[in-house]
Amino acid sequence: MEERLKKQMEFLLEVDKEKFIGRQTYLSDGIRKENDAEHAWHLALTAALLAEYSEEKIDLAKTMLMVLVHDLVEIDAGDTYAYDAVGNQTKRERELKAADRIFNILPEDQAKMLRLLWDEFEEQQTPEAKFAHVCDNIQPLMLNHATGGKSWRERGIKKSQVLKRNERTGEGSKTMESYVHEIIDLNVEKGNLKDE
Amino acid sequence: MEERLKKQMEFLLEVDKEKFIGRQTYLSDGIRKENDAEHAWHLALTAALLAEYSEEKIDLAKTMLMVLVHDLVEIDAGDTYAYDAVGNQTKRERELKAADRIFNILPEDQAKMLRLLWDEFEEQQTPEAKFAHVCDNIQPLMLNHATGGKSWRERGIKKSQVLKRNERTGEGSKTMESYVHEIIDLNVEKGNLKDE
Repeated sequence: MEERLKKQMEFLLEVDKEKFIGRQTYLSDGIRKENDAEHAWHLALTAALLAEYSEEKIDLAKTMLMVLVHDLVEIDAGDTYAYDAVGNQTKRERELKAADRIFNILPEDQAKMLRLLWDEFEEQQTPEAKFAHVCDNIQPLMLNHATGGKSWRERGIKKSQVLKRNERTGEGSKTMESYVHEIIDLNVEKGNLKDE
Repeated sequence: MEERLKKQMEFLLEVDKEKFIGRQTYLSDGIRKENDAEHAWHLALTAALLAEYSEEKIDLAKTMLMVLVHDLVEIDAGDTYAYDAVGNQTKRERELKAADRIFNILPEDQAKMLRLLWDEFEEQQTPEAKFAHVCDNIQPLMLNHATGGKSWRERGIKKSQVLKRNERTGEGSKTMESYVHEIIDLNVEKGNLKDE
């Protein structure tokens, strides 16, 4: 086998580990929690089907690949819950170290390509990165709504925290920002989110 | 919420069920078996990183979306193991019925688009469909190889069965066909696959 293909297959095997990285969101059955690979699959499908609501025209292949790889760093760095203030202080450092190791399993050109894509996601400045974040925010919101706010209830999450997480959602999509507000209000009404 | 967005969100919630559809392939830890959503995520990443080996130029966004949705019908039809002769006799009928229900949750234009994409995958005639099948074949092969052929051993799978499953892999990619043969030979040598 050629050296290039060997590196590519080594990377594809390594990223299998993303399937073992658990998130805090419950799946629609309200029993099992989602893992990063399932989440990324769901985001890519979300991006494809809701692209029409992006404020700016997006390159769909780029956006899908961006969401497919946006959590790979968590193979080493672990998942940091969106509302974990302490974990979020060290998140960036842990993830940068992970990015250096994981992407560099690939041949140099592809390592660079994925690293740039991940940096672009993190910086959230381009149309694709803004819309990728829209997807990353609405997918757990949808699941939380479907499970009666189970993970919010368990952790006593406040409306203000979900609003804060979504403060830039409107930059990517005004339509999906309205969706977020509608879902938040419904869940405050039901007592799934605290309103203080 | 607009009717169109409501249907799209209903579909995105419905497909969450793909995360509960188990496959026969063990993950790289050799303990847990993969589910359809994890598998589809892995295929989309495989398509993006190995596209250079496709015999014909492929539209990457189309190929990624094709693999992301190729197993959605299994939400109703269940996963049929590649080497389950009896199950494969009724697979087509079960999957057609599932496709009618699941894709039609979406607004008409998107339902039609995904249905055409799934039909295209099944027919395996276009460059994208051929390469999607390459990905769908090599990903479980890679995992089987990584786990010492665990699911092959458990079911006494023969070299000829894996070759049969891969009989059209070369149409999509000669390079990946060589990879398949290399991995098969290695696993016959180790006794992970029967050679009769």
